[in-house]
Order: sequence, then structure tokens, then C-alpha cells
Amino acid sequence: MAKQKKQPRPKAQAPKGFRDYFGAEVSERSEMLRAIAGVYHLYGFEMLETSAVETVEALGKFLPDVDRPNEGVFAWQEDEADWLALRYDLTAPLARVYAQYRNDLPTPYRRYAMGPVWRNEKPGPGRYRQFYQCDADTVGTASVAADAEICAMLCDTLEQVGIPRGDYIVRLNNRKVLNGVLESMGLEDEAGRDAVLRTIDKFDKVGEAGVRALLGKGRLDASGAYIDGVGLSEDQAGPVLAFLTSKGSETAVTLGNLRAAVAGSDTGLEGVQELENIAELLLAQGYGPDRIEIDPSVVRGLGYYTGPVFEAELTFEILDEKGRKRQFGSVAGGGRYDDLVKRFTGQAVPATGISIGVDRLLAALREKGRIGSTLKGPVVVTVMDRARMADYQTMVAELRQAGIRAEVYLGNPKNFGNQLKYADKRGAPVAIIEGADEKEKGVVQIKDLILGAQIAENATHEEWKERPSQFEVLRGQLVDKVKEIMDGQG
Amino acid sequence: MAKQKKQPRPKAQAPKGFRDYFGAEVSERSEMLRAIAGVYHLYGFEMLETSAVETVEALGKFLPDVDRPNEGVFAWQEDEADWLALRYDLTAPLARVYAQYRNDLPTPYRRYAMGPVWRNEKPGPGRYRQFYQCDADTVGTASVAADAEICAMLCDTLEQVGIPRGDYIVRLNNRKVLNGVLESMGLEDEAGRDAVLRTIDKFDKVGEAGVRALLGKGRLDASGAYIDGVGLSEDQAGPVLAFLTSKGSETAVTLGNLRAAVAGSDTGLEGVQELENIAELLLAQGYGPDRIEIDPSVVRGLGYYTGPVFEAELTFEILDEKGRKRQFGSVAGGGRYDDLVKRFTGQAVPATGISIGVDRLLAALREKGRIGSTLKGPVVVTVMDRARMADYQTMVAELRQAGIRAEVYLGNPKNFGNQLKYADKRGAPVAIIEGADEKEKGVVQIKDLILGAQIAENATHEEWKERPSQFEVLRGQLVDKVKEIMDGQG
Repeated sequence: MAKQKKQPRPKAQAPKGFRDYFGAEVSERSEMLRAIAGVYHLYGFEMLETSAVETVEALGKFLPDVDRPNEGVFAWQEDEADWLALRYDLTAPLARVYAQYRNDLPTPYRRYAMGPVWRNEKPGPGRYRQFYQCDADTVGTASVAADAEICAMLCDTLEQVGIPRGDYIVRLNNRKVLNGVLESMGLEDEAGRDAVLRTIDKFDKVGEAGVRALLGKGRLDASGAYIDGVGLSEDQAGPVLAFLTSKGSETAVTLGNLRAAVAGSDTGLEGVQELENIAELLLAQGYGPDRIEIDPSVVRGLGYYTGPVFEAELTFEILDEKGRKRQFGSVAGGGRYDDLVKRFTGQAVPATGISIGVDRLLAALREKGRIGSTLKGPVVVTVMDRARMADYQTMVAELRQAGIRAEVYLGNPKNFGNQLKYADKRGAPVAIIEGADEKEKGVVQIKDLILGAQIAENATHEEWKERPSQFEVLRGQLVDKVKEIMDGQG
Repeated sequence: MAKQKKQPRPKAQAPKGFRDYFGAEVSERSEMLRAIAGVYHLYGFEMLETSAVETVEALGKFLPDVDRPNEGVFAWQEDEADWLALRYDLTAPLARVYAQYRNDLPTPYRRYAMGPVWRNEKPGPGRYRQFYQCDADTVGTASVAADAEICAMLCDTLEQVGIPRGDYIVRLNNRKVLNGVLESMGLEDEAGRDAVLRTIDKFDKVGEAGVRALLGKGRLDASGAYIDGVGLSEDQAGPVLAFLTSKGSETAVTLGNLRAAVAGSDTGLEGVQELENIAELLLAQGYGPDRIEIDPSVVRGLGYYTGPVFEAELTFEILDEKGRKRQFGSVAGGGRYDDLVKRFTGQAVPATGISIGVDRLLAALREKGRIGSTLKGPVVVTVMDRARMADYQTMVAELRQAGIRAEVYLGNPKNFGNQLKYADKRGAPVAIIEGADEKEKGVVQIKDLILGAQIAENATHEEWKERPSQFEVLRGQLVDKVKEIMDGQG
């Protein structure tokens, strides 16, 4: 360490865009992941955990709107060897795994996966460069029954984690319909299509007039900056807008509008037929348009989708950081990606899946007050006599054997007030005190800290005297009395 | 995708030294992490999850025996900004967190953490560059009661996850004792000390004679290569060897030998006293030398330890890859690191902790056959009529509502044999069949696949006829009959 003393001290900070999660935040996420995994498991999906690191070539380049080098991933080169990168989602690694193990895996392969993913994006408020996803995918079947199953499972999952029916909607679209529209317009070059896709994706934000302007010459945005348009003529933009606004009062109307919008394109008609089949399958299982609806404005940013795409939105309103009401928005998205495995093998392997943004879903539940109660701390055994540490350790051992979370105060015991302050900070329900007097008498003092805090806040002086929050019990009754007090605290 | 078709196909392979985990492997690890977390929680530790990415300067350089650039970590530079790296353990990030939030955290701060860490090392058989750790640390107390608590908790944890008493030993040493020995030898330059530490760490492998040679001129290793020694004289090597071999038949003897070995060094005597205090505290709580013993040959490779160090070893024998018997070895290690937080703040913050190598512990339990039973697959509803997919979906929905894991076959249903092969591959307990005949009669066929397999393997022709493994039941009895069959399968 001698050398380091001469160096400047390192900054005690997580890197920009990364954060730490404490206590209940971590356990609430674990619980949510378990709940989601429970539903996925019930549907027959198998767990898979790939490593966080993949080769850059295996990941491919599919991230949307990339404004950073390395296409939005964190990447580095091995000494004169492969470029490696942190995974940006759980789908690209799945495609690699399926290609690698395809002879050993069942077909279709239903798998689920959960864990952090990393994006090398500009950090912003509430937007982090590491976040959790929880995915389920079915690889190896072209049947739209697989897409329907994913949508149904998504509804079940949201309800399971505490989003009641009515507070969410799964919106369903099909890339093939969109491609049909573009085909019928004669717009088939990749760059032009991508530009149109990105514009459509802004429909929620800028509305029909905004999209019309952006498909044409461009428009002034809210900040006063001029945004260049795609440069389509009014005639060309027409079918796109017809498509975008084809959502009707009921499924049949929407499907009819979509059939008109694709103007005879085979791809487009195939896409509409798929949507109709999915909607029928879902309706037969009781998933009506109150939970899953066809919505042509859903695009999904990722470049690898080839068929049905879906997105789950929470529909209740929250207040944003500026105090304005807005809908909470998207918490999950996915779709069919029939070409991702083909990148590796050359053979078409159809696949479809969903990714739940676990951190956003947790934020939503916290907004609604459905999670976020502070966890109870441990029973704190205070230290009155440093030489009798073994006695205090024996007390906590007894408590733990009874299943009660407990610890000895391990800071400097000199100042007793500090020990009680520590117990407070930990959210301890109870503190135990055994000084020399107590030891001699064979008793311990048990302080009910929850009741103590309530009395201190609300009680009159009379009540204070009548409701003691500290009890002297025989040493042998320690565990029973602590249990009794904690049961009373609820 | 047009451009990509012209490029060579990416290789479908995890990067060298990384691997994928399937099904039961993942869930067994999750269960172990939960079990360990349960013990840590009971002891009053709070969860913390830091990000996988830290700045290189915050991580510091403490990895042992580094033969790679970047000191054994995966690191990369942000555009003209910080160097970032994947964490190589969970302790360095804890030191950063404590320094960053020290005014808000309780003192002492007991925290636990679990997750993958990454080492940029040469991969080898069974040695991966991403692996799981599960740590518990107490920051902010110099009391050896904290070290004793960590050792006791480690024993409880090992027993909780299925390593019975007698199959493990926690070995305890103290860096201060070692430093005392080096001090008394007049060996105080950092490079020389490190060389001696590394040599001592080889005691388990090369024995006393080997260490004696390596401390002196060097020796031929098993492969015939000559390994240079540290270059100490016989006189200088003497105290090191006395220290290394000071383990006696009981704790008091070992402590006496250690006192002699440190030859009056204050640091060394302080270290011996700490070991004595820890051993006494533990004995008072029932953790005797059958579970936790003082062993001077424990060094621990990491550079940041300053006081007591500990290591948990599994003592049962396994067969190595060449079929030779050997002890399973270390599954957890830790110690006191009083200077890690000081790197950031300049103020001494004592700390101690343990790290459990979860993947090694899982491997040990698998070796002993204590985990690794194959999980039951889902009930598979076969598809006899593609047009009636909604009917089959309704069946699985009913089964799931009864808590039974179930799925519809989503591959190409043309070849019924493939559907049953799929059910086999999934480990399905039961397959459901409803063709046109069954539909008309209002019944379904239920195939008991476990019984079917047993009969196929063992039964005589008579038994085969007597014990049908396929049942026809009314459609309305589907769920009850499946439940009955699965309960019978146990």
C-alpha cells in the first residue's frame, strides 16, 4: 500500500449512469423476479442463464437510435483477439445459444432468462446504463399460437406481480403489415424504411399531424429546433398515415382498415391474417381487447423483428418529475424475430418472445404504493460490558434459532445512546439490555422500540406511564417475550 | 439485414472462458443463493446490489498472481473519459459504496451481496471467467467479535445449504502474525514480503520441503521446470517455516508455537492475541476446533487483507478429472481489510467479511449427489387438429389454474411421434391427447409417461397388460385425473 498513499485518492462514486440498490430495493426486485419466473415456469418455459459477456459479432447490431460509438454497447478488445461486449438484451444471447446447442435442445425451445443488461447510452434522470430484464421466448415454431401464448402469459404475469386488470393494456401489431404498406408505396430500400419506422415510433409523442410533417419536409419540435423530415410526398405519406390511424372501435374494424391500408400487398395481407388469428386464439382463451388490442402505432425500436410485435403499457396516470400528469407507459415489449438464429446457421429458425423491464415495473408498483414498505430490522442486543461479548452472542444465537433476526451491537459500546440510535437506524423492533445489575439478578431488559416510538409521538403523559415500552424478564424468558412483543407489533 | 448476408456468419459460441447454464443448473443456484441469503439475513445483514461496472480507479489493484494485462480485470475506456471495468469481486465495490454513503449508512454496516464477478484470467478446465460470489461483510468495527461472527455464520451457512458438520473446516489465520514473522526477519520491503506470501500459499501443494526450497534457491516442479526461489538464507527461512508448521494438536499449543515464531514482534503478538480472542468467543458459542481451527498455512491471495483471514474447506474426497482422489478444497474465503475504505476517504475504516464461491459449492453438492435430480417437465397437450388450437390452449389454461405446469405442443403437429418424443425430451410427466374421435365422445386420453417408461423398461408382457399407462377420461375430469396421476408419480 506504500505506493498508493502517494497517488491521489480514487473518487468514491459509481460510474456515470450506474447506481447502487440498497436493502428493500434489492429484495423487492428479487421477489418480483421470482413471481415472474413462477408464471413463466407454469407455462412450461425452462430457465437459461448466459454470461454477461458475448463476442461483438455474436451480439450483432440491432439497437435503435444509437448516438454512441460501439453502437450503444460496452465493448473492448481481448489482447489481439475477439472484441467482447456486455449483452444489451437477453434475446441476442438466446439466438447464439440456440444456434450453438440446437441439436441438444427440444424444439420448440421455450426458455426464460432474467438478469441485468447494459446499454452504452447517455444517462438521464431515471435512465440507467444497467437495468434488469426478464424475458420469455419460444424458438423453433412459426405458429402464431406461440405469439398468442406470449401475449396471454404477459397478461398473467402483470396481474401476478400486482397490476390489476384495467391498469394495463397489451398492444399488438405486425411488422409484416407495416412492410406491406411500405411495399405498396414502393419504398423498399433499407435506409428509407428505417427512417419511416423511426417516424412512426413518434406517433404517441407528436400525433398524426406531427408524423405527417416528419414524413414530409420536417417540423419544429417543442424546443424550437427544426427536425428534418423523411422527404416523402403527400401521396407517399398517405398510406403510412392510413395505416397508423387504422385503429377502429373494435378488432374487426381495425382489421378491415389494415387490409385496406396494405393495398393488396401479399406480405401485408399475411400480416393482417396473422393478427386476426392471434386475436381469435386469445379471445377463445378469454383475453379480449380490454387486455390485448391490435394497435398499428406499435413499432418497437429493435431492428430484428419480422412479424407480430407487442408492447405492454400501464394505463394509469402518474406525476412526472415536473408534477405533470402522464401515463406511466411501456413496461414490456417483444415480438417475432425469425432471422436472428439464421445469422449464425444460415437456416431459418422462427422465434418470438417478450422482455419485461423489471426496474420500470418496480417503479410503477412503487408509484402506486403497492410495494415499498420498509423492512423490519433485526433485534439488537446492546453491549453493556465489553468483556461479556460471548454472553451477548449467546442471546442472539438463541433468538436466531427461534427464527428471529438478531445481532449484537458491534460498534464502540462506550456511549449507550449511540447503541440505541443505531437500533433506530436499523429499524430494530426490539433492543435487549443486560448490564451488570441485570446479570446479577438473572434478568434482561427488553425495549419495545416500535411502541416506544409511537408513545413518544402520540401519547399523553398519563398514557406514557400506563403503557410501558420496556420490560424486565427472566433471562430464560428472553426468546418468548421477544416473540410476544414482535407478534404484537404485527 | 441485406448488408449482413454478405458478411461471414458469426460463430455461435460463448467467448472463451464463459459458459451457459441451463434449467436445473440455474434454479439450483438460485435456491442456494436464497438459502445463503436467509442465514445472512437472520444475522442482521442487509442486502446491497452494486452495478457490475466500476471505475478502474475505484476497484484498485489487489488481484493475486496476475498474468494478464489490466491486472486481471476486463477494462475499457469511455470516450476520452474514465476507464471502466467489470468488478472482480464484491468487496472492492463495497468499500466504494461505504465511502460514498458513509454518512447515511448505519455504523457498523452489515451488508450482504450476491452476483457474478469477472476475472480476466486464462480459462482452464472448470475455471471460468465469470462466476458467482455471495458475500457478507461488516464495515466500521475493529472488534474481533465481528470476525468471530463471520466465522460462525459461515459454519451455519455451509450446514444450511447441505454440507454436514464434519465435512467442512473453517481455517483461521492472521496476517498480523505473518507480518510479525517477516518483521522479526527484517524483511520489510513490499516485493520481498509478497514473494514470501506467495510461497507460503503453496504449502498445501508442495509441503514443508518444497516451501523451504522455494524460500531459498528454488526447486524443480512436477513438470520438470525449474522454479526460481525467493533467495532467503537458511537462517532467514527458519522463522517462516517455524510459523508455517506451528499448528499443534490443540488451539493452546498452536497459539504457543505462534507466540514463539513471532519472536517478540509487537504486530505479531497482537495478531496471536486476536486469534486467541476469536477462538474463545467462538468456543463460548459452541464453535469448537472441529469446525473452526487456527491454521497458520492460510494466507489468502488478495492483497488487501490486514488482520484475521479465514477459509472454508470441504474435507471429503472426490475424484479429480484424472480419477485420482483428492480433497474438494476451498469454497469460501475472507478476512479483515482495514485499509480498503481508507483508499477513498483517508480515514481508517476497519472492515471484515467472507466470500462464498457459490459455483464451487454447487459443484461440491453435485459431487456428493445432494443436488442434481432432474426437474419435472410440464404436462404436454398434444395437437391432433391444428384448427382446434384454442381447445388445446383451454386445456393448458385449466391445468395451470390448478397450479400444474403445462403447455401445448407448438412445433409442427403433423408427425404425432415427434410430439411424444418432444414430451420425453422435456421430461413431461403426462401427455394429453384429444383427436376427432375423443372430441366427439367428449373424452381425452391421458398418457402417464413416467409409468409408461417404467413398464417399457421392466415389466413382463403380463404386467404390461395389467398396468395400463393410458387412460380415457371425460373431458371434464381432465384436471383431476392429471393431478391424481402426478401425485402417484411422487
